[in-house]
Amino acid sequence: MTGKALIVINPNSNTAVTAGIDRAMDPLRAWGTPIRCVTVTDGPHGIESQAQADRAVPPMLDLARSMEPDALGFVLACFSDPGLHALRDETALPVVGIMEAGLQTALRLGHRAGVIAILPNSIPRHLRAFGAMGVLSRIAGDRALGLTVAELADADRTVAAMATTGRRLRDEDGADVLVMGCAGMAVYRERLEAETGLPVVEPCQAAAAAALGQIALGLAHRPQSG
Amino acid sequence: MTGKALIVINPNSNTAVTAGIDRAMDPLRAWGTPIRCVTVTDGPHGIESQAQADRAVPPMLDLARSMEPDALGFVLACFSDPGLHALRDETALPVVGIMEAGLQTALRLGHRAGVIAILPNSIPRHLRAFGAMGVLSRIAGDRALGLTVAELADADRTVAAMATTGRRLRDEDGADVLVMGCAGMAVYRERLEAETGLPVVEPCQAAAAAALGQIALGLAHRPQSG
Amino acid sequence: MTGKALIVINPNSNTAVTAGIDRAMDPLRAWGTPIRCVTVTDGPHGIESQAQADRAVPPMLDLARSMEPDALGFVLACFSDPGLHALRDETALPVVGIMEAGLQTALRLGHRAGVIAILPNSIPRHLRAFGAMGVLSRIAGDRALGLTVAELADADRTVAAMATTGRRLRDEDGADVLVMGCAGMAVYRERLEAETGLPVVEPCQAAAAAALGQIALGLAHRPQSG
Amino acid sequence: MTGKALIVINPNSNTAVTAGIDRAMDPLRAWGTPIRCVTVTDGPHGIESQAQADRAVPPMLDLARSMEPDALGFVLACFSDPGLHALRDETALPVVGIMEAGLQTALRLGHRAGVIAILPNSIPRHLRAFGAMGVLSRIAGDRALGLTVAELADADRTVAAMATTGRRLRDEDGADVLVMGCAGMAVYRERLEAETGLPVVEPCQAAAAAALGQIALGLAHRPQSG
Amino acid sequence: MTGKALIVINPNSNTAVTAGIDRAMDPLRAWGTPIRCVTVTDGPHGIESQAQADRAVPPMLDLARSMEPDALGFVLACFSDPGLHALRDETALPVVGIMEAGLQTALRLGHRAGVIAILPNSIPRHLRAFGAMGVLSRIAGDRALGLTVAELADADRTVAAMATTGRRLRDEDGADVLVMGCAGMAVYRERLEAETGLPVVEPCQAAAAAALGQIALGLAHRPQSG
Amino acid sequence: MTGKALIVINPNSNTAVTAGIDRAMDPLRAWGTPIRCVTVTDGPHGIESQAQADRAVPPMLDLARSMEPDALGFVLACFSDPGLHALRDETALPVVGIMEAGLQTALRLGHRAGVIAILPNSIPRHLRAFGAMGVLSRIAGDRALGLTVAELADADRTVAAMATTGRRLRDEDGADVLVMGCAGMAVYRERLEAETGLPVVEPCQAAAAAALGQIALGLAHRPQSG
Repeated sequence: MTGKALIVINPNSNTAVTAGIDRAMDPLRAWGTPIRCVTVTDGPHGIESQAQADRAVPPMLDLARSMEPDALGFVLACFSDPGLHALRDETALPVVGIMEAGLQTALRLGHRAGVIAILPNSIPRHLRAFGAMGVLSRIAGDRALGLTVAELADADRTVAAMATTGRRLRDEDGADVLVMGCAGMAVYRERLEAETGLPVVEPCQAAAAAALGQIALGLAHRPQSG
Repeated sequence: MTGKALIVINPNSNTAVTAGIDRAMDPLRAWGTPIRCVTVTDGPHGIESQAQADRAVPPMLDLARSMEPDALGFVLACFSDPGLHALRDETALPVVGIMEAGLQTALRLGHRAGVIAILPNSIPRHLRAFGAMGVLSRIAGDRALGLTVAELADADRTVAAMATTGRRLRDEDGADVLVMGCAGMAVYRERLEAETGLPVVEPCQAAAAAALGQIALGLAHRPQSG
Repeated sequence: MTGKALIVINPNSNTAVTAGIDRAMDPLRAWGTPIRCVTVTDGPHGIESQAQADRAVPPMLDLARSMEPDALGFVLACFSDPGLHALRDETALPVVGIMEAGLQTALRLGHRAGVIAILPNSIPRHLRAFGAMGVLSRIAGDRALGLTVAELADADRTVAAMATTGRRLRDEDGADVLVMGCAGMAVYRERLEAETGLPVVEPCQAAAAAALGQIALGLAHRPQSG
Repeated sequence: MTGKALIVINPNSNTAVTAGIDRAMDPLRAWGTPIRCVTVTDGPHGIESQAQADRAVPPMLDLARSMEPDALGFVLACFSDPGLHALRDETALPVVGIMEAGLQTALRLGHRAGVIAILPNSIPRHLRAFGAMGVLSRIAGDRALGLTVAELADADRTVAAMATTGRRLRDEDGADVLVMGCAGMAVYRERLEAETGLPVVEPCQAAAAAALGQIALGLAHRPQSG
Repeated sequence: MTGKALIVINPNSNTAVTAGIDRAMDPLRAWGTPIRCVTVTDGPHGIESQAQADRAVPPMLDLARSMEPDALGFVLACFSDPGLHALRDETALPVVGIMEAGLQTALRLGHRAGVIAILPNSIPRHLRAFGAMGVLSRIAGDRALGLTVAELADADRTVAAMATTGRRLRDEDGADVLVMGCAGMAVYRERLEAETGLPVVEPCQAAAAAALGQIALGLAHRPQSG
Repeated sequence: MTGKALIVINPNSNTAVTAGIDRAMDPLRAWGTPIRCVTVTDGPHGIESQAQADRAVPPMLDLARSMEPDALGFVLACFSDPGLHALRDETALPVVGIMEAGLQTALRLGHRAGVIAILPNSIPRHLRAFGAMGVLSRIAGDRALGLTVAELADADRTVAAMATTGRRLRDEDGADVLVMGCAGMAVYRERLEAETGLPVVEPCQAAAAAALGQIALGLAHRPQSG
């Protein structure tokens, strides 16, 4: 297992997001398996629409392919998991998406998950993915922060909006666990838990833990040849 | 409406498939709206895996974008509808996928649809899409022909395999309507109906009819901006 | 195809409703197939309960039967589609219900449909039909206008109530597309789209387009003999 | 409660069926409430298609209406419950359908119910009703006897076909309880239990017991006025 | 049937609850079958968490076992039905749970049931049980009274909270029938019906009626041997 | 974290099963967190019915409670997860059930999971749990080995029966991933993968990996107080 690592791919080109994901990995590094977070430099700066999500897939696949010799497995770090099953077709290594693992982890902590989306546009994309996963009956709701991109740069404002959204998911929709529907915001997790009294899942952490488990246990899908 | 047309996009580069789709459009040409079938020349030769489907999306989107000035609407002619919602993000014109329209049409002709897939690999991809569409409770089954790609070149063998698969869907799975889970095979529809006694939907036809209806009625989605 | 037409049956005896449906057909008449809208003169004046819906079926079936020699297909123009499957048992021609086609069309324009019902009584009837169709997971909500029958005569009041109801479906229930749960109100469609910013489906138009598609493509169910 | 009775309505005109239902009521007569089984004399001789089911509703409603002064409640004795909700609109007395009560009773005896239909035609009708009831996830299967109407006259042949069908539902579909999808065959229940080792529900009995419970407890729906 | 009775088991040790259940049985005693309500004296005083529910099962099973010689059947009188299937494994007599029967009865009186829970803690437990029963699509909502245990001792306050909760289920969630999610409160049923205008099901009554029906008809599950 | 460990509780008293679970933990021990497998010595020798499962819960809870001072978290090692939510009520430490984690892991490796049950009796118990979890749409099937308890002692016979059952789940039911519906059989996992060509999940391993992830990330439910 010398130089090989779990590769966490941020499919957008925003290195600040990648850095946030990287810091979130720290609690899992004690297990001994190297974890490397990488950026798809020719990806979009952010993934806000299905078109951007779909256009981000081929460069993500190409990067993963190029890194496979050094990889023990992959985490796909964009909520809604664009290209998840495509990547599984191209590698026999473990592949985990942050949406699937984030929700699975949440559903061990509560009965109905509330999802905090960054933008309203993301919601239909999420709903299609929840339907494909067959988990709709355990989703309490999916609500957006209602901030502009400019406002997202303001951390306090973002946390306040997350707390407000989390409380609506709890009180109006009946959520008993929350999932952050985005990557690179692990730093806010604790504050959101304090504000809502609910467990909060940061999905990159959940996915990396799941991937490390599969690596340790030798558990992978069977890729479908063409 | 002078030079504008409904554009039917075959996202693979196989022009024989495009030609088959084009012939299938004939019964709808009497309505007066031009229908143009185009090939994504830099797409894959065939779409057999999720990876190929995902990689086919950006060139498909680019072709659609380039043709938008001459378009009244789009049909996406690959069963499993790769890039359907991405295309909807990029244009305000009507966009219809052949899987969604093929299934919707089938569910007006019977209660439980049987889907004939070309390859076994396609089935998990179809199931994810059925889940996203929320139609799983009306799918009787999805079965593959069980032919190699070489054998698919033999028309009689293909029809025979389709009939066998259709009868299994009818007798073992309870299907009362069939959908051809592929594009460009309209020529076999009548024979398959005769062999099975069930109505058979060719999904490119179903999608083009649906798109022409939306065009006539001025019905389109609202694209999600970034 | 000389004298034959698509027959749109209004199962209630209200000829003003039939006239509204007839005007809504205009955009589809360019396709060349005659469309005739007819009234079940011995039907109820309006269909407000399940009892009225069920009692309206036999005269509707009788009218359809008597018109079959001149018909290319039928549209059943009462939301909740009473007698839809019975009519399919009695004719081999294409038969489309406005609820099924209205919802199918809506689900190509958005992910979750909001249905505007005239009366609260209709909602359980709609919910049973949505369950039978297997589309419940894509219904955002079904809300009634909350007007008395007398108030419905006032067009401005009706439009205002529709807009209010549409906005509640959008903002509280998460609908991204609306369906008018009634026949003969196509004239309000544009205003409702403007008021809500969402695409709005008038279901008689959707059903007629779908029926014309089936006629053009030779696609019909197989009637079940006794 | 002097002359009033629970009225069990057989919506077809076949008095032999009514007589069979009447005999099946005997175990419930010990409870003291009179049970009267009546025939809709102007109903169809049998209900085999959705068209026959729908056409049978108005005379059934009229008969019920005429009997309401002498009724404590109604059981609608045709599997698929045609007109059930219409009857609930027209009376404030308890109304129970044999399909709904038959299935509910079965789902207290096993986890997945197998339904024995008389004719293949009935199956889509049943499936629509199961969907409307929201019970699809607990239906193991619905299979028809595969006998002609002539062959149904032969009791031994009918029982043998029922046993064969019941065993297929048990062994291939995983049913752990059976429901007879027809009225007036209570006499075969015991033999079918012996042949399959599964509990068997005769739905007229189940519905009458449920209706008597509602009568005793003063439990009825609220009819929807027009 | 000399000394045998339907045994209604209150799995908590609160004899006031048992007395309330016993009074609720009166309308069913006219049928002639003795009904005995018993308390699990070594059960918890109340069942408020899943842990308490699960810990209450073995003493309940033991009591049932000891009473089997005198029993015609059992009703398990704790909403969420803890130990229902375990009891079915240990006896061949009819066994009915108050949650399952309460919901089944409600779903014959309306299309979407609203459940009134005593405590917020109960809601995830209920949701898991609804999912196991496969009835989720017909649950309008499950809301708690929001009273402390001390406040529950005040009857007027309890009824007022029930009415408020029932109206929220009706107006916000769309419930058209209510189920009291607790045992021993039948005395409030009429007032809750008056306050909400909806039918209200007291689940112990519903379950006892269902059990008496099964006893009369000789309908029981097949216990699973070890 | 000195002497504390992840506690894996085998709720039956069969120490051979506990030993099998313990060996299966080896690949996860490299992560550094101690894993202790313990036996509920006053549990049943095996858990074959719902009654045995329910009766096993209180001693399991008591053992967990007594061990909490030395625990970092718990795995409940009985497929069908009896007492899972009760244990979550009694501790604030992470708690993972082998059924929930086994299925979640499987659903990252394939689209439809096939479950191999030891005994036919287990299947309704599993189905209820799948319904409670909301995963039914992704279960291909649940089939029992069809061996007597005596035959299970023969390892070769057990593996052969597992392979046969796995192939039926794959070929008849469409499973693309398998879950062993039992604890302590990890030793057979590799052979079953070889025999079926599908990924196979041993659920104790899956649950321990998930629990270690929660421990590392500080992720736990919020226990419900009484």
